[in-house]
Amino acid sequence: MSVSQLNEAHEKDNGVAVDRLIDLTSADMDQVNDLILSRADSHVEMVPQLARYLIEAGGKRLRPMLTLASAHVLGNASGNQIKYAAAVEFMHNATLLHDDVVDESDMRRGKPAARKVWGNQASVLVGDFLLGQAFMMMVEAGSLDALDVLSRAAAVIAEGEVLQLAKAGNEDTSEADYMQIIGAKTAKLFEAATEVGVMAGGGSGEKRQAMARYGFELGLAFQLVDDVLDYGLGVGLGKNVGDDLREGKMTLPIILALKDGSELERKTILNALGQEDADDSVVSNVRTILNRRGALEETMSRAHQHVEKAQAALMELPTSLHRDILADVALFCVQRAY
Amino acid sequence: MSVSQLNEAHEKDNGVAVDRLIDLTSADMDQVNDLILSRADSHVEMVPQLARYLIEAGGKRLRPMLTLASAHVLGNASGNQIKYAAAVEFMHNATLLHDDVVDESDMRRGKPAARKVWGNQASVLVGDFLLGQAFMMMVEAGSLDALDVLSRAAAVIAEGEVLQLAKAGNEDTSEADYMQIIGAKTAKLFEAATEVGVMAGGGSGEKRQAMARYGFELGLAFQLVDDVLDYGLGVGLGKNVGDDLREGKMTLPIILALKDGSELERKTILNALGQEDADDSVVSNVRTILNRRGALEETMSRAHQHVEKAQAALMELPTSLHRDILADVALFCVQRAY
Repeated sequence: MSVSQLNEAHEKDNGVAVDRLIDLTSADMDQVNDLILSRADSHVEMVPQLARYLIEAGGKRLRPMLTLASAHVLGNASGNQIKYAAAVEFMHNATLLHDDVVDESDMRRGKPAARKVWGNQASVLVGDFLLGQAFMMMVEAGSLDALDVLSRAAAVIAEGEVLQLAKAGNEDTSEADYMQIIGAKTAKLFEAATEVGVMAGGGSGEKRQAMARYGFELGLAFQLVDDVLDYGLGVGLGKNVGDDLREGKMTLPIILALKDGSELERKTILNALGQEDADDSVVSNVRTILNRRGALEETMSRAHQHVEKAQAALMELPTSLHRDILADVALFCVQRAY
Repeated sequence: MSVSQLNEAHEKDNGVAVDRLIDLTSADMDQVNDLILSRADSHVEMVPQLARYLIEAGGKRLRPMLTLASAHVLGNASGNQIKYAAAVEFMHNATLLHDDVVDESDMRRGKPAARKVWGNQASVLVGDFLLGQAFMMMVEAGSLDALDVLSRAAAVIAEGEVLQLAKAGNEDTSEADYMQIIGAKTAKLFEAATEVGVMAGGGSGEKRQAMARYGFELGLAFQLVDDVLDYGLGVGLGKNVGDDLREGKMTLPIILALKDGSELERKTILNALGQEDADDSVVSNVRTILNRRGALEETMSRAHQHVEKAQAALMELPTSLHRDILADVALFCVQRAY
């Protein structure tokens, strides 16, 4: 099945899966949204202005919804999931602010990136503020175990970003390097989101591990798809097609095509990688090679494998409405980027 | 007494005060240094390279030494002070990495700033890594109260930096604004350092508050002196004279001189503020005005007032060798910048 057929086949079902997740978490999510707004506040005007600009630009708040749904999967959520979910979203937004500075991104969520409006300096500092606030909320929730999960995630995410930076434009980047990078920079926060969620629902031991594994596999799938979307399937997502290529990011489609491509194809790709001002025709030429070598399809296929692993992890939990919806959401995540 | 006379008068005594602090904390500090090195490590090569470049450049590690001395002030340190001290130093180094990006600094601790060697991108990300590691160590120490102190400090420090950025070059910046900025960006971490220190030594209630107040007042004094040193007393400290002026920072010497200065003096200062390529003669002209208006002396005099408040706070604790050395160290801190 081609990528576009895959997209088409699941589009309808998956919209429904996310709508069900939204419905399922809406009561908790109202509290999370209130908490997010109040904790993004500060007597220093520029802080809430910048933070809200990013936060209110939306995104579907997938990560906090995952935390909330995970908290209810065992049927006895403590209430701590509200603070955990807000903390996870703050960590995510802090990462976005710093990433946009690191990647020199112009756009985020369909609007000019915060750094284009307030500058790199304020973006770095407000990211730090949000991280501090995230930890304050975690401390208030009062669980050292959950704090351990999130502080570890913060360090691992940063390590993943550094590794990605170190590997930028490096044609020797292996598939294993790539999996290590996306495991750290993306999947670790999904893992933390679902892990602290189920912990707020009284989950421990194998159940906690299963929910952590679900989040991690889902995060891998999510990033694999994101890296496919960057080559042109993600029109209208507020992302610039070809950004990864221009930034020299060694994503799986590139790694696969470099492995299988002809000398000429390899040369075309390597010339384009990291070319900051690469125009549409350059991106289009690379995309043609990626398609010809089946690199986008193969990447999508691997994403589906990780979705299956995510769903298998859920099977270790007792059956419930929340569990079923999380299983469907995993499939949705390979279809759309947030 | 002029600034240079003040310097001269205390130079000898204060060197001794810090040497005594170093001796006093050396057994603990060996453990802290080991912990710092091991926690700056990562399988991602660039992380320890960059982190160690900064960490090993030195600085006297004043903040962790304050944590250690504060832990022993009541005579029954738990051992947690080792992790707290390392966490405080990591938070400080994370802040330095981000500040140097924000300020576009070229030098730090007498060497090219990390961002000049590894770039802004890696500096932002390794700062994030160190912050994550700081929280992991705090979690391991297992005190939610201490975590509360440090997570709050992280958020407040970032707010202070944003406020400083928002006020850069703004001639209406008041003394109150300035005190708010340095309270947040500098004094808050000194406060946290001594507060978690005494907590590791079993301090609570009024004793904990007194040590927090000591740290905060000491931090204010430290920053006031730092802002004087930027106008030329700090030769050999690895700092570029005039950096604050070039960055448009509204420090107290500038605020005082703008208040008292003639129209011509005000104009000279305002023209120079934020002039990125201001040469030595521009800085020298501003310094002449600051001296003529007594702005540097007045700033030093205020620093001494805060040292006195810091020392007064210590008097609420039982007498001890550690307490006496901390009192002397406060005086030292107004003499030298680290």
